Amino acid sequence: MDKILRIDVGADGGPALREEPVGDYAGIGGRALTSTIVCKEVPADCHPLGPENKLVIAPGLLSGTAAVTSGRLSVGCKSPLTGGIKEANSGGQGAQVLARLGYAAIVLEGEWNGEDLYKVTITKDGATIETANELKMKTNYQLMEKFQETYGSSGAMLSIGTAGEMRLSNSTVAVTDKEGRPTRHAGRGGVGAVMGSKGVKVILLDGAGTSMRQPVDKEAFSDANKRFNEGLKKHAVTGQGLPTYGTNVLTNVLNEAGGYPTYNFKQGNFPDADKISGETQAELEISRGGVSTHGCHRGCSIQCSGTFLDKDGNYVTKQPEYETVWAHGGNCGICDLDAIATLDYLDDDFGLDTIEMGVTIGVAMEAGLLKFGDADGAIKLVKEVGAGTPLGRILGSGAATAARAYGIEKAPVVKGQGMPAYDPRAVKGIGVTYATSPMGADHTAGYAVATNILKVGGDVDPLSSEGQAALSQNLQIATAAVDSTGMCLFIAFAVLDQPETFQALIDIINGCYGLSLTADDVVALGKSVLEKERDFNARAGFTAADDRLPRYFRREQLPPHNVVFDVPDQELDQVFQW
Amino acid sequence: MDKILRIDVGADGGPALREEPVGDYAGIGGRALTSTIVCKEVPADCHPLGPENKLVIAPGLLSGTAAVTSGRLSVGCKSPLTGGIKEANSGGQGAQVLARLGYAAIVLEGEWNGEDLYKVTITKDGATIETANELKMKTNYQLMEKFQETYGSSGAMLSIGTAGEMRLSNSTVAVTDKEGRPTRHAGRGGVGAVMGSKGVKVILLDGAGTSMRQPVDKEAFSDANKRFNEGLKKHAVTGQGLPTYGTNVLTNVLNEAGGYPTYNFKQGNFPDADKISGETQAELEISRGGVSTHGCHRGCSIQCSGTFLDKDGNYVTKQPEYETVWAHGGNCGICDLDAIATLDYLDDDFGLDTIEMGVTIGVAMEAGLLKFGDADGAIKLVKEVGAGTPLGRILGSGAATAARAYGIEKAPVVKGQGMPAYDPRAVKGIGVTYATSPMGADHTAGYAVATNILKVGGDVDPLSSEGQAALSQNLQIATAAVDSTGMCLFIAFAVLDQPETFQALIDIINGCYGLSLTADDVVALGKSVLEKERDFNARAGFTAADDRLPRYFRREQLPPHNVVFDVPDQELDQVFQW
Repeated sequence: MDKILRIDVGADGGPALREEPVGDYAGIGGRALTSTIVCKEVPADCHPLGPENKLVIAPGLLSGTAAVTSGRLSVGCKSPLTGGIKEANSGGQGAQVLARLGYAAIVLEGEWNGEDLYKVTITKDGATIETANELKMKTNYQLMEKFQETYGSSGAMLSIGTAGEMRLSNSTVAVTDKEGRPTRHAGRGGVGAVMGSKGVKVILLDGAGTSMRQPVDKEAFSDANKRFNEGLKKHAVTGQGLPTYGTNVLTNVLNEAGGYPTYNFKQGNFPDADKISGETQAELEISRGGVSTHGCHRGCSIQCSGTFLDKDGNYVTKQPEYETVWAHGGNCGICDLDAIATLDYLDDDFGLDTIEMGVTIGVAMEAGLLKFGDADGAIKLVKEVGAGTPLGRILGSGAATAARAYGIEKAPVVKGQGMPAYDPRAVKGIGVTYATSPMGADHTAGYAVATNILKVGGDVDPLSSEGQAALSQNLQIATAAVDSTGMCLFIAFAVLDQPETFQALIDIINGCYGLSLTADDVVALGKSVLEKERDFNARAGFTAADDRLPRYFRREQLPPHNVVFDVPDQELDQVFQW
Repeated sequence: MDKILRIDVGADGGPALREEPVGDYAGIGGRALTSTIVCKEVPADCHPLGPENKLVIAPGLLSGTAAVTSGRLSVGCKSPLTGGIKEANSGGQGAQVLARLGYAAIVLEGEWNGEDLYKVTITKDGATIETANELKMKTNYQLMEKFQETYGSSGAMLSIGTAGEMRLSNSTVAVTDKEGRPTRHAGRGGVGAVMGSKGVKVILLDGAGTSMRQPVDKEAFSDANKRFNEGLKKHAVTGQGLPTYGTNVLTNVLNEAGGYPTYNFKQGNFPDADKISGETQAELEISRGGVSTHGCHRGCSIQCSGTFLDKDGNYVTKQPEYETVWAHGGNCGICDLDAIATLDYLDDDFGLDTIEMGVTIGVAMEAGLLKFGDADGAIKLVKEVGAGTPLGRILGSGAATAARAYGIEKAPVVKGQGMPAYDPRAVKGIGVTYATSPMGADHTAGYAVATNILKVGGDVDPLSSEGQAALSQNLQIATAAVDSTGMCLFIAFAVLDQPETFQALIDIINGCYGLSLTADDVVALGKSVLEKERDFNARAGFTAADDRLPRYFRREQLPPHNVVFDVPDQELDQVFQW
């Protein structure tokens, strides 16, 4: 991880590759690295699809080592969806392989000719780029079919489906999983469109001949890693809930809390929630011969994923996440797990963020294009997006654009990005995160659901406005740090509740790099990342007015608790005052 | 003009009308009044289509009097297109009739039920509102057919076509002309969508039994009006150019100056400009039995309009304006005046701003949906907008949204609003206005073309960056004042060049109201309007980053002068420092 690969698609004579030492960017990884490069090298006022934007792909600080659950890959740029800085991260094999190949980051930059598509291949011997126009309008699974032998079982593929190639604002960078399938995605904010705007269709990472990154202090690292893993196993969420039922264990929890956004955020519970809950899903998966406990990358010890088969036992998709099941399910009044799995597959295949896609379909339902509950209609709409029909282009541009095209107010978005699966009126801490995160509405940016609902890391009443701003602040700082390590965010449950597990995480980093960081250093890292991101956004024109929920969340009560979002603006404005 | 009509479409039991004294809003009119009401009564952070927004319709201070050319009607709101404050104004009969009916303003407010359409009728005896669902998806000309007898030859109709009813971001409020036709439009910024979001389809103004507003000092008023009219007749632009050829006299002028944006702002001259010039257009109109000298409202002494007939002598549309001929013509590589007239008719009928529509079609051509020069294709696209197909909804949402849906950078917009018919690289003063006007890219907000190209009000080299910020500042101040009087902006040519004509204008106001205003007061009025608008926009989240042209205008040279926009950012930031 001592070099950066720069791919200038606008070089004279065609795309040019350049490897350079990591230099000034040494010592940071993941989100810290992508946000630092974007903040420094991308003019904040550029067009997200123009030549001045860059796409930065970086494994975390610990990726490629033996550290458990360290396989998150960060993808950063100026976002076509929000107009601000964006870091989207993904599981899958990408981070581990890229790190073992020795790259701290890949940077796609320069002015594309607007015509040719490119394929990048990286092996232990270096990187090459070729024109690959035969890949035009190929989907992610089609790319898998074509290249699975090339990247092989020890490698990974990063790719854009048809959505990214069409430069739609909702488009992902897909990352293959342990089975080589494109089921993991740097999903939010349209990072796939930026990859598309550089003409790069696919990046094949061949891991053959690479080996695991070695820590500086092997013994300290190994000991810390063991303690860390024990901490994950010991905690109820990472040791039991997530492995058994996956993230979808949250459906019943949020529904009971009255914070499950239903019918485009019209009410906080869904009468048919039990039909799509994690418990029901796991039972169905197992009954069909699938699995409900499975990791997205090698070295994961949480194993929150699974495999979803159809009634005949054929693979459909990986186990859809809670947010996916919600977005395509309760948010749209849909209670059919098979339909939801099909939607998840289509999203993965075309390269669409499932949250933004589901929120957009909810908006389309609100606008009267189809009825709430119409699963077949929802599937048809996603196929339109994949094919790039005019309707598909509206919907593939995200919820805010769909609401604009159909002239309606009720788009649950912040900074143009659709809200995830937690209603901010009934889970007010997450409302603060939605409002203030530099990323737009994003549950992973400061997962206050943990403390509001799951009572992890304390207990803050979800329905009260009190204490939510401070809660979100702390979580946003911690998250920015975790996102920089390459660790999966799910480690946060154990880290928040168990001081010894937090210490073990710090000890892993220290062992890996021969450092002596303290908890204060981790906090300082998180703050510095957020400060850079806020600085970029300010230069891009964001103000306090952008750190707000849409007004109707303050106006319209959410049943069953009949609450509005009432955290005062002044408190929102203090989230980044430290 | 001593009362305000408020129409609360969300009142208990159905829409309610309320007349109230003009009160604190006394003494201002037109843009000053609409911007003051919007600034004070509309929360800057509201959704443009939500219940908190209001649509304010106000005649100018002098409308309804015998003052020549005083028939401009202002329409204000928070703009669905820009997200900032908007004042769009229109010619036609509306301002004169509304003023004579005694109204300083109509305010549409409250929360619409989302279902019913309403018809408002105002006579000398007062106002009524009725449900009129039979008008659903009627076009403006269809409304004319239905209501022409009601509003009669002394009245006027304000209406939205299908675009406003669908709440598309590019939708106008149509105002009927002397012949009762819906050919005049408060065009920019999607004000029609806000009328649509209140469910008001049509406002019929019956002028029967009303009389001209009488000035306080009849003699002084009459004398000043005479001097003012003489000034207009004496000036080459208002006395000769505009009456003879209409605004389209500018095609050849801008083309020769290399500032005529062609092929979506790719070059500054259009090889086929002579086929669509004002000279050619006037000749064609006259040869077919149409007229090329005609006023849009009674009392206009400039007469810049005309009537466009087809080859068989049948009415097609009013004489298309320069900006319309450019938007649908050179900007799209189209050089067929009949096709352009058809597009103008369709825009009027559906209620679409011709500038935004043409700029959007240029973006669609850039994106490859159709070829530059494809007139039939352009007509087909506008029909899609009128019908509300998915493609039509993309295009009817304006150039920025179309560029987003098709994933391209090259959208010539500022604050989301399409640039008019003057390339900011070759006419740099107008570039400053585009960048900094609170309205978004708007030539009428500070028409520096006058001084850059026509050499009216001085001579500032259009290709140099020097002096442009000061020029735009002065013109934006003057324009904000003129827009408040109800006077047509075209009086500015004579007012800028002839001090005695400027004095005559002030004397008209003084005679009308029994005041003793000076030139300084006019400047102070203009500044106060701009300050309110800027304040609203700041509260809505606008910053200096919004007062910029898209970066590619600084990057890509415009032939034939091979110039970029190079007015320094610091100078843009000083336009409102006085």
